[in-house]
Amino acid sequence: MEKTDEMFMKEALAEAEKAARLGEVPVGAVAVADGRIVARAGNRRESGRMATAHAEMLCLEECCRTLGRWRLEDVTLYVTLEPCPMCAGAVFNARVGRVVYGAKDPSMGACGSVLDLRAYPLHTNTEFTSGVCARESGELLRDFFARRRRENEQQRPD
Amino acid sequence: MEKTDEMFMKEALAEAEKAARLGEVPVGAVAVADGRIVARAGNRRESGRMATAHAEMLCLEECCRTLGRWRLEDVTLYVTLEPCPMCAGAVFNARVGRVVYGAKDPSMGACGSVLDLRAYPLHTNTEFTSGVCARESGELLRDFFARRRRENEQQRPD
Repeated sequence: MEKTDEMFMKEALAEAEKAARLGEVPVGAVAVADGRIVARAGNRRESGRMATAHAEMLCLEECCRTLGRWRLEDVTLYVTLEPCPMCAGAVFNARVGRVVYGAKDPSMGACGSVLDLRAYPLHTNTEFTSGVCARESGELLRDFFARRRRENEQQRPD
Repeated sequence: MEKTDEMFMKEALAEAEKAARLGEVPVGAVAVADGRIVARAGNRRESGRMATAHAEMLCLEECCRTLGRWRLEDVTLYVTLEPCPMCAGAVFNARVGRVVYGAKDPSMGACGSVLDLRAYPLHTNTEFTSGVCARESGELLRDFFARRRRENEQQRPD
């Protein structure tokens, strides 16, 4: 793990925290090209009323718009949680050079947890690094779901 | 195969033809709710300079905007080609009720060709029907790639 990986992951965590404040499952992402952040996004599924509005998708789309192209071989995507099949598929479709993620996702993770999309002959030259700031990312998610459970319990009739 | 499946797939084929005229790989999709088309889109990866701009993604996103929600249990998505991992993942994330597709995609298909995402414990209650207007869909794709090969050969120096 490079020092810069941790630095950029902190930026992705900041996006996850912003998402949490909006009531979204806290996942954040930043895209880095040439050592600089070119796009950043957090999960907006609920507030955006959009099934595809995962942090990775919004971040890759902003990245394509910023760079004016769909091929992102020179881009590193930092994301706080292991990508789901949609997002891992988008990473391959965009030919993203490298993905760095934090916590594993045992319920939807497509990079080794539920399945491993890299095992199939897709366009999968992407390099992967996992576990960067995994503790912080996991804590954000656990806190979010614990708070949501408490709120649901309070709303339950006696 | 219902008669209406064929009817809606013809609309998806019309979107694929529009995509071809823009120089895009010809794939088209329509989303149907309550017996009516609520969203339609064709592949725009090249012209949109957007890695995620597959027909299915654009169509599901328009569908979420039109219906004002991310859960699409009552929606049938018609698409001319077997969805890739990104698009099949989006279908599950959106809880799409039913997917009807045309031709198989031996290079990227995630519904049985390269892999079968339905085999994993994701949110996969979606019902699938394949082979509707598969011949027309396949011909559109073959014609497109044959034309592109001819154009590339003409551009080659002697």
